[in-house]
Amino acid sequence: MGLFITLEGTEGVGKSTALQFLRDRLQEAGFTVVVTREPGGTLLAERIRGLLLAREAEPMSPMTELLLVFAARAQHLEQVIIPALQAGQWVLCDRFTDATYAYQGGGRGLPVPDIAALETLVQGSLRPDITLWLDAPVETGLARAAARQALDRFEQEKAVFFERVRAEYARQAEEAPQRYRRIDATQDIAGVQAQLQQVLDSFPGLSQD
Amino acid sequence: MGLFITLEGTEGVGKSTALQFLRDRLQEAGFTVVVTREPGGTLLAERIRGLLLAREAEPMSPMTELLLVFAARAQHLEQVIIPALQAGQWVLCDRFTDATYAYQGGGRGLPVPDIAALETLVQGSLRPDITLWLDAPVETGLARAAARQALDRFEQEKAVFFERVRAEYARQAEEAPQRYRRIDATQDIAGVQAQLQQVLDSFPGLSQD
Repeated sequence: MGLFITLEGTEGVGKSTALQFLRDRLQEAGFTVVVTREPGGTLLAERIRGLLLAREAEPMSPMTELLLVFAARAQHLEQVIIPALQAGQWVLCDRFTDATYAYQGGGRGLPVPDIAALETLVQGSLRPDITLWLDAPVETGLARAAARQALDRFEQEKAVFFERVRAEYARQAEEAPQRYRRIDATQDIAGVQAQLQQVLDSFPGLSQD
Repeated sequence: MGLFITLEGTEGVGKSTALQFLRDRLQEAGFTVVVTREPGGTLLAERIRGLLLAREAEPMSPMTELLLVFAARAQHLEQVIIPALQAGQWVLCDRFTDATYAYQGGGRGLPVPDIAALETLVQGSLRPDITLWLDAPVETGLARAAARQALDRFEQEKAVFFERVRAEYARQAEEAPQRYRRIDATQDIAGVQAQLQQVLDSFPGLSQD
């Protein structure tokens, strides 16, 4: 089985740049790497993503949002993630179920046990091997994200929403210390990459020594 | 509170005609009636319906199908059904959660306890007051449905799929005899309407005597 690595964090913390760095290092080391994202990663799951991000006149029920996220995840797992891992490929995924706890749990206030029940229903016992949490104060990330493009339904949320999201990431990092690696995303690109390299060095067969 | 009436049945059993008859009778009796359908009933829920019915190159995971159905239902309940019932209106809904047990449970073979868990998560204790099950042999309905239009992702299923759907409706009707009314849909329109009228006559304030 390949390793399943997820990247997490609030808006504008540099996940895309980190993902690219990790992909390049892993490919140089000779691994086949599948880079993907959630919600999305298949044609149908990307359509569900479109519904989730669209700013509509009709307000979306938080429960609808939660179920759409897991509907897309079930499709992504069956079509992409599980086949890749079974073929011995590494999967680098931009957000996964930790984001559901953070955004729909922390952000929207949905009960954590409901999310946990859906996690088991959809994933069975499958969890990421390593979760890289790019952490930075909410204002830093929001300023970067706002400079980029038109805001989607999540990005338009206020800072207090993202404070709750970040707090939930922190809670999860504390609960799953073996799996979570906190990356200080306030550093410059070289600083972030040095931290990512440290994580890679801890994997068998990837040490630069 | 108004009454929540659902219509169920496999393809081509005459749900639309029955819905129209019931709406007319209830309106004549002075009730405000909301006629709606699942999956769908709101702008967002209809978009989810579009994903569910589309015949795509990418096969849909049964779990994705189940979660999309409940995502649409959560939206429909919050935006349409619950506000209408609370305003004292009657809701006539073309398919509801019994169809999920029938199609995703009976048809696709998903475990009934998983469906029951999602039902509680999304609906709490809300259930229809009356469910009219229009029942006919599968071949009768499929012939009628095929004559009508291009087949969607469900309608293109084989007869054996609809046999399982029908068997699950029969099992539910046996389990919830107070709520279920079986309507013999092999009869002509007048015969079906006479049966529907009998059900209406059993409601307080609707008897034609």
